[in-house]
Amino acid sequence: MNIPKTNLPRVVIIGGGFGGISLARKLLKKQVQTVLIDKHNYHTFQPLLYQVSTSGLEPDSIAYPLRKIIRTSNRGYFRMAEVSNIDSGRQIIQSNIGELHYDYLIIATGSKTNFFGNDSIEKNGMWMKSVPHALNIRSLILENLEQAVITEDPVERKALLNFVLAGAGPTGVELSGAIAELRNHVVPKDYPDLDASEMEIHLIEGMDRVLPPMSEKSSEKAANFLKELGVQLHLNTQVESYDGREVLTNTSTKFDTYTFIWSAGVTGAPVKGLKAEALIEKANRYVVNKYSQINGYNNIFAIGDIAVMESDEFPKGHPMVAQPAIQQGKHLAKNISHLLNNEELEPFKYFDKGTMATVGRNRAVVELGKFKFGGFFAWFVWMFIHLWFLIGFRNRLVTFFNWVYNYVNFDKAARLIIRPFKENQKQSKSDRAL
Amino acid sequence: MNIPKTNLPRVVIIGGGFGGISLARKLLKKQVQTVLIDKHNYHTFQPLLYQVSTSGLEPDSIAYPLRKIIRTSNRGYFRMAEVSNIDSGRQIIQSNIGELHYDYLIIATGSKTNFFGNDSIEKNGMWMKSVPHALNIRSLILENLEQAVITEDPVERKALLNFVLAGAGPTGVELSGAIAELRNHVVPKDYPDLDASEMEIHLIEGMDRVLPPMSEKSSEKAANFLKELGVQLHLNTQVESYDGREVLTNTSTKFDTYTFIWSAGVTGAPVKGLKAEALIEKANRYVVNKYSQINGYNNIFAIGDIAVMESDEFPKGHPMVAQPAIQQGKHLAKNISHLLNNEELEPFKYFDKGTMATVGRNRAVVELGKFKFGGFFAWFVWMFIHLWFLIGFRNRLVTFFNWVYNYVNFDKAARLIIRPFKENQKQSKSDRAL
Repeated sequence: MNIPKTNLPRVVIIGGGFGGISLARKLLKKQVQTVLIDKHNYHTFQPLLYQVSTSGLEPDSIAYPLRKIIRTSNRGYFRMAEVSNIDSGRQIIQSNIGELHYDYLIIATGSKTNFFGNDSIEKNGMWMKSVPHALNIRSLILENLEQAVITEDPVERKALLNFVLAGAGPTGVELSGAIAELRNHVVPKDYPDLDASEMEIHLIEGMDRVLPPMSEKSSEKAANFLKELGVQLHLNTQVESYDGREVLTNTSTKFDTYTFIWSAGVTGAPVKGLKAEALIEKANRYVVNKYSQINGYNNIFAIGDIAVMESDEFPKGHPMVAQPAIQQGKHLAKNISHLLNNEELEPFKYFDKGTMATVGRNRAVVELGKFKFGGFFAWFVWMFIHLWFLIGFRNRLVTFFNWVYNYVNFDKAARLIIRPFKENQKQSKSDRAL
Repeated sequence: MNIPKTNLPRVVIIGGGFGGISLARKLLKKQVQTVLIDKHNYHTFQPLLYQVSTSGLEPDSIAYPLRKIIRTSNRGYFRMAEVSNIDSGRQIIQSNIGELHYDYLIIATGSKTNFFGNDSIEKNGMWMKSVPHALNIRSLILENLEQAVITEDPVERKALLNFVLAGAGPTGVELSGAIAELRNHVVPKDYPDLDASEMEIHLIEGMDRVLPPMSEKSSEKAANFLKELGVQLHLNTQVESYDGREVLTNTSTKFDTYTFIWSAGVTGAPVKGLKAEALIEKANRYVVNKYSQINGYNNIFAIGDIAVMESDEFPKGHPMVAQPAIQQGKHLAKNISHLLNNEELEPFKYFDKGTMATVGRNRAVVELGKFKFGGFFAWFVWMFIHLWFLIGFRNRLVTFFNWVYNYVNFDKAARLIIRPFKENQKQSKSDRAL
């Protein structure tokens, strides 16, 4: 990988998500050589991906060049690569651009979509874990609308105008809300020769409420917001298959659609090579102690979605969202310092900053400790916090500008089919891995 | 195409470039049914494409949804389609989404890259006529930099860091200037482990000066600006072939490079079906009279790059740039009114608003009639005029914001490899047609 050998210990971080960059930013200030590896050359602010999918934002608003983080120290290195294997005996990682020796290794590879072995969904459905995925969904939505306009067959048109999402976690809720806003505000203006009421948005959830990690009160509020926007909820319903046209469920409910988006589960994205005891096979996540050390290793750590740190409060590990990753990253930087100075390690303590989800303009639910609220003020808090956590002053400003513009004008300005998805579906399959 | 038949005469416009949209905007106010057809769902502001290629702007700054133009009148229709043939006998156009009858037909399909039959360049080179092309160039530049960092073979690294462009018209000059600025300002900061001086930008031109359509004085100024930025000029040199690695020319000069961008010629992009006498075969452009009527037809017109309107001042037709297209579009709207009212047609008169090109920050050349100037003030005029002609208030504001940010910070914020070009070169071939 062409990285110079120095006297400093080398810390290698695999993954430039929330965990990886919060760790890297701290390590860059310390007397270690920091190497950050990611398959993309940018950090993705995943909580706002759904706005890229629905033409509200362009990628540069939510993606941040990783080199811009690394360049703040001359002890930092970035490499765009996919790590294929860890050889813990030789302390080496192997990748598509060669090998690299590490003194400390941090796995921060996050999670990927979980299809629970359902091939029909993986083959025919869409999902949203990266910018290319989000752009594919954007293209597909807009291509469907263009095709619906010229289709005289009512059954065909209905299938083009049905948008079906599975999984009512934050992603499913936010995405279906944003598609509903497209229908309510943009479609009637842009497609006057289309009957916008023919466009239906269906959100399917296996449990009995939306946003299962939140309180029942918030779930109820969010469900009401979705109904106000015209999203049709199907609770206690599980998707069984999707053949590219028909969504079958475990109830009598079925859907005829060209657009099926799967947001009903994630699983860890581990790297090959570690001992069996390191991994919880079912979850594809590493077992770590309260210092983030992977079970069976002293100098290999895992943080964020990929790590299961068991505690009394979280017997199955922390929720797979941004905050635990950010906090574990910052905390691990401290512990690596301690290791280098032969000091005692400090156990990680999670500070729950709360959870939130937005459903559309003026509508969100927020839970901050005891405070649970919904509606306009919650939406305002949601926006403020997301702007605050976006990486880089420029991205905050561009996002803020786009939000103000879209809000005032009831518009989504980036409704551009740059790379058609449908016609090039075979080509775009390669994107799916990104 | 599912467009309702009304009592109004139907005017069909093929192409949503500068000519097509300036005509459509005027026609939408008149008592005709206006149908605009384009293969993209957006208008591309081509003069700023090079900034998308070089990470300065995102697509939404320079692309504008065509439906947003069309929706201003309920007599307007947009269809995303590729027109394959014109049947002038039946007054019908044929496309991938079906047929459509027209009363008046306007061909505004613009131009495409001219390889002059050189297959090696078409197969292995890059070019820039659309947003997907520009994004491919952006990815390729950034991928080359990433690869150069890890390459220990000096010959291979040099080939990754050599950027070779052919054709010193505005596109070649502006693009090579912008790549030089990436090297001068971004690469040293982002790639501290790369020797930026190894990165060379070569601009090849067959004639004896850059910007041949401008005055010799402006050419000289632009050439000096390019040299100041570190672009190496090779005048009186013609490219003979490019095999994906080596650029051969008609002189002893040759280049070892992974990036060869062809901007040395355009040719018309006509539609099949009209009589032979309608087309100038060599140029692939339609012969039109001073009312924009295509030779041999009364109700079929051509405007912009695709039209050759001979005049004393312009014996080979107007220059293939935005202004003639815009002015012909506006003018033709008037003449279609005249036709409908059985009034006499007015001949087109071109008002030359001048020409200009920018070479980099603070550097541009401008010719407005007798006034020819270069440098900071010219650059300011260039920016102002480009903002002015951008479509839509939002696009102007986003572009302005990005320019201010990039200027103040010596930065190009959108350096994101969203769709890698190299690895997926085969897949991306389909983009090339877009």
